[in-house]
Amino acid sequence: MQIAIGLYDGFAALDAVGPYAVFANLPGATVVFCAESAGRVTDEDGALRLDVERSFHDLPAPDVLLVPGGTITRRLAEEGGAIVEWIRAAHPTTVYTTSVCTGALLLGAAGLLTGRRATTHWLAYHHLRRHGAEATEERVVTDGKVMTAAGVSAGIDLALTLAARLQGPAVAQAIQLGIEYDPQPPFDAGAPSKAPAEVRAAVTEVMAAAEARMRAGTPDPARR
Amino acid sequence: MQIAIGLYDGFAALDAVGPYAVFANLPGATVVFCAESAGRVTDEDGALRLDVERSFHDLPAPDVLLVPGGTITRRLAEEGGAIVEWIRAAHPTTVYTTSVCTGALLLGAAGLLTGRRATTHWLAYHHLRRHGAEATEERVVTDGKVMTAAGVSAGIDLALTLAARLQGPAVAQAIQLGIEYDPQPPFDAGAPSKAPAEVRAAVTEVMAAAEARMRAGTPDPARR
Repeated sequence: MQIAIGLYDGFAALDAVGPYAVFANLPGATVVFCAESAGRVTDEDGALRLDVERSFHDLPAPDVLLVPGGTITRRLAEEGGAIVEWIRAAHPTTVYTTSVCTGALLLGAAGLLTGRRATTHWLAYHHLRRHGAEATEERVVTDGKVMTAAGVSAGIDLALTLAARLQGPAVAQAIQLGIEYDPQPPFDAGAPSKAPAEVRAAVTEVMAAAEARMRAGTPDPARR
Repeated sequence: MQIAIGLYDGFAALDAVGPYAVFANLPGATVVFCAESAGRVTDEDGALRLDVERSFHDLPAPDVLLVPGGTITRRLAEEGGAIVEWIRAAHPTTVYTTSVCTGALLLGAAGLLTGRRATTHWLAYHHLRRHGAEATEERVVTDGKVMTAAGVSAGIDLALTLAARLQGPAVAQAIQLGIEYDPQPPFDAGAPSKAPAEVRAAVTEVMAAAEARMRAGTPDPARR
C-alpha cells in the first residue's frame, strides 16, 4: 500500500508529520512525500525544509492521498495549480483521499467536495462551503472515500481513524500506544467553543493578518 | 528568544515537529533546527529528510533546547557523541532544557538527570533510571529548568506547558486554538495502563525488534 503526502511551499508541518507518524507504523504501508517537483519544500513557518525526492508525476496512483493545510491553500485553491491537478487525477483510483486543516480547500478545488460533508480549520468553514461542501465542526469526517480533518493537530486523529478502517482497531491501537498518544493538553482551549472569547478573537486576528501578508507577499515581521 | 531543536539521523519526526508547531507560534521566538553538521538529516522511519542549515557549533547558547527521541537514542547515549556534548555545554545557560520521548536518555547521558524527576517513552523508564533519574509516568515533568515529555506525541503537551510558563496561559491557549488541539483519538489506548494487554504486548515486541535491528545495523524488512 502506497501512501502519498503531497506538499507545497507553505504547508503546515504538523498537518503532514502528525499523520506521517501514524502511517509510518502501518504494517505493509510505504509513505512517500512528494511535491510539484523533487527538491526542497519549506513549511509555512519557514524553519523546516524538506528534501522531497518524488514529484506528483512520480506518484500518479497512490492508495491513500493526503494533503496538509497552510495559509497559502486558499490561494492555491483559487489558482488550481499542480497539486490540485494531481488530486483530481489521482482521486478516481485511491482507496482514500484525505486532507488535514485547510488542505480540504485543495480537495474542494479539485471538485471532490461538491455535496459532501467535510471539515477544515475552524476559521475556514466558509471557504469550504464555497466549494459546495457541507462544512461540519466534527474533528474527522468520512464521506465515502473522502476523509477530512479539522485544524492541524486533527491529522493525528484522522490517521488513526484511517488506520483502523484499513487494518482494524488492534493495529490502530498499537500505533496509538507506540506514539503514546494519550493527550493531556494543559488547557481545554483547543476548539473555538471551548476557548475564552478574547483568545478566540486574538487567534482570528493573527490568522487574518497572516493571510493578508501571504496575499501581499510580505514576510512576517515576527520571523527572522 | 532562540529555541534550538537538536536533531540526528534516526530522530522521530513527530517528537520534533509537534513542539515546533507550538514554538513557531510563540511571539518573539525564533525556532532553529540544528544537527552535528549542517546538511541532510533523516528521520527514523526513513521517508522524511530535513535540510538542516545550522550545526550545534552555530548554536552554543539557545534559550530553550529541545531534543527529540528515537530508537537510536540508547546507543547515542552510550556513545556520548556530538549531541550529548552539545546538551552538556549548552545547558548551563538555557532557560529550559527539554526532551521528548527517549530524547530524555540524551539529557541523562549529558548528566542532567541525576536525582531529578523525569519521564520518557513508557518502554524506556528503566533506561532513564540508569542515568540516575527518578522515572515517573506523568505526561510532562518539570524539575527545575529541565522539562521532559512522555512518548512522541507528548511533545505537543510539553511545548504548550512551556509556552504558558514563558508567556502566560493566554498565549499558550491561543497557540492551542490556532493548531486546533482539541484531541479526540478514536480509541483510548494511548497509555500502557489503558491499552488492551495484547496490544501492549504487540508494541513491546515490535519496539524490541526495532532496537535489535538498529543495533545490528540491519534495515527494517517492512520498509521499502
